[in-house]
Amino acid sequence: MQTVSNSIIVEKVKTSKIDKVDFKNLSFGKYFTDHMMVCDYKNGAWEIPKIVPYQPITLDPSAKIFHYGQSVFEGMKAYKDADKNVWLFRPLENQKRINISSKRLAMPELPEHYFMDGLKALLKLDHKWIPESEGSSLYIRPFVFASGNGFHASPSDEYKFIIACSPSDSYFAGKVRVLIEEKYSRSADGGVGFAKAGGNYAGQFYPTQLAVEKGYNQVIWTDDHHHEYIEEAGAMNIFVRINDTLITSPTSDRILDGITRKSILDIAKDENIDIEVRKITVKEVVEASNNGSLKEMFGAGTAAVVSPIATFGYQNKDYDLPELDNSYASRLKKRITDIQYNRAEDKFGWRYAVDVN
Amino acid sequence: MQTVSNSIIVEKVKTSKIDKVDFKNLSFGKYFTDHMMVCDYKNGAWEIPKIVPYQPITLDPSAKIFHYGQSVFEGMKAYKDADKNVWLFRPLENQKRINISSKRLAMPELPEHYFMDGLKALLKLDHKWIPESEGSSLYIRPFVFASGNGFHASPSDEYKFIIACSPSDSYFAGKVRVLIEEKYSRSADGGVGFAKAGGNYAGQFYPTQLAVEKGYNQVIWTDDHHHEYIEEAGAMNIFVRINDTLITSPTSDRILDGITRKSILDIAKDENIDIEVRKITVKEVVEASNNGSLKEMFGAGTAAVVSPIATFGYQNKDYDLPELDNSYASRLKKRITDIQYNRAEDKFGWRYAVDVN
Repeated sequence: MQTVSNSIIVEKVKTSKIDKVDFKNLSFGKYFTDHMMVCDYKNGAWEIPKIVPYQPITLDPSAKIFHYGQSVFEGMKAYKDADKNVWLFRPLENQKRINISSKRLAMPELPEHYFMDGLKALLKLDHKWIPESEGSSLYIRPFVFASGNGFHASPSDEYKFIIACSPSDSYFAGKVRVLIEEKYSRSADGGVGFAKAGGNYAGQFYPTQLAVEKGYNQVIWTDDHHHEYIEEAGAMNIFVRINDTLITSPTSDRILDGITRKSILDIAKDENIDIEVRKITVKEVVEASNNGSLKEMFGAGTAAVVSPIATFGYQNKDYDLPELDNSYASRLKKRITDIQYNRAEDKFGWRYAVDVN
Repeated sequence: MQTVSNSIIVEKVKTSKIDKVDFKNLSFGKYFTDHMMVCDYKNGAWEIPKIVPYQPITLDPSAKIFHYGQSVFEGMKAYKDADKNVWLFRPLENQKRINISSKRLAMPELPEHYFMDGLKALLKLDHKWIPESEGSSLYIRPFVFASGNGFHASPSDEYKFIIACSPSDSYFAGKVRVLIEEKYSRSADGGVGFAKAGGNYAGQFYPTQLAVEKGYNQVIWTDDHHHEYIEEAGAMNIFVRINDTLITSPTSDRILDGITRKSILDIAKDENIDIEVRKITVKEVVEASNNGSLKEMFGAGTAAVVSPIATFGYQNKDYDLPELDNSYASRLKKRITDIQYNRAEDKFGWRYAVDVN
């Protein structure tokens, strides 16, 4: 059952479980494909990646992931076009970013070819799992975590790099209501906010729960100094349209350098939309809402794609965004998804073909 | 092999591995006792705790601990006195604090009796593992992590609470050299710095590695705004003695409410030492060092106990602390360890007897 292909060891499942999954009711990140890629870091080096049946992981109770939060991840998607060709979107950006995250968390960087060859070998085996209905895709989760043992609060000596895939529907169902946060914070100057580190997410759950209890879907994080500037939304970067200008915060050590974010900026430029990459104050957004110049707000991220915001809450007041025909959000979403699903020319060279035959 | 004692299910090992451990060379957190306590949270409730042989944990690759850093922990110690009686130190403080941490990480709080009964049942089985040599103890690690599955960035629906124990020597060997951090930060206002959350530790490893490369053991974290105030050292709270006044930072949402920290404050008060709990600027400490009024700096924490600092580095300069006879650090360390090891009267009522017979 074990074969070696392109220096990756492949062990296939005996029977696929694909028939047990209802592709009409996928939700997000709930079902997993037949295989996964596993690559172990031991004795100072990454071992040869293996494709194995999707299976549980066994760890010592002292494994550092349980105690010291040493983990990073990426979010990617595989798309299937009308001819059943398989595409990735700017995958090398994810490969680079997981290493930027790893470095900040004192974790070993991954060789580019292990990341890309592992991913391609996995998609070759599991490409039938890529959903074909509108808005669906195969969500890909590369992640690295500390698997070495010991209670000493210091970096692990062993790590596991895994890629697992989940056929998924949209991340948000329906209109998004966000709350601009005034008390809690996502990240510190000089902290790990720019990294896709596990701990950044756990810290957001409680404030997000409080927002959900008030009827919102997500929190818009502000700076931890005076909660004065709009930063990002945890699962997505934030764009604001005032009059006809599209504004987003510059990336920093507190804000994730989102791949969808920077693609949206390039497409907006190509669409001759006025762009400003600068700090945005909450005050400015509230004033723009009050005087009618705030036209749109939307989130951008791999899971969220482009998610229009219907309402933002701030200081116990809700501000509704207008409903526009031909909004920037809908134009930009169409442009980026047309590239992702191979429905339009890819003038930026972002599409990445995966040979699954 | 399975017995039920005080509503805790107990499954003992067939053969102890205690003879395989060299108690003269324990180091810290490297060896683990025969048993561990496991308690699962499922369907909205904590199940009955079980004591089982120390064994690996098996999780789905999508378990949220690997992706979103949802984990909290505590550090405690069990001490054996000359008559082989077993003692804990203020264990209810740990029990309370793990719930404070859990709440901030959107994790379910633990019932007090599960924590305490589980701990006592575990110590009853594994008390032979408590080292008896000076400075050694049984390090106890209660921890809770997200064991539920799914790639959606939201709180887990299942958790595991585990207590594992490790016979350990001192955390620091020898004199401690610390570097006052000027670039990186540990935590944000409104963040999770006050919680013993896994992600707080992973974020410290890289800046600490940089400090270690420069010849220091630990980083002293400063505020993330202007790196102006001394906060804590990650594995310990920080005390500064200027002339005869002992100063430590007030706790905040960035600083852990250390149990050793507050015990040291109580003992210092009892010793008629002048105490100031207030913000300390880096500038003040550097000036005090330059004019000779800086007498001592030390860290305080469960693992670190009281660790005198020999040198601090700041802006590429090293500042040595004087070597004092009868230092506050040595007096306070003696007082607290005499209570912990039952060598002195416990006027504060901190010692907690564990019946192991």
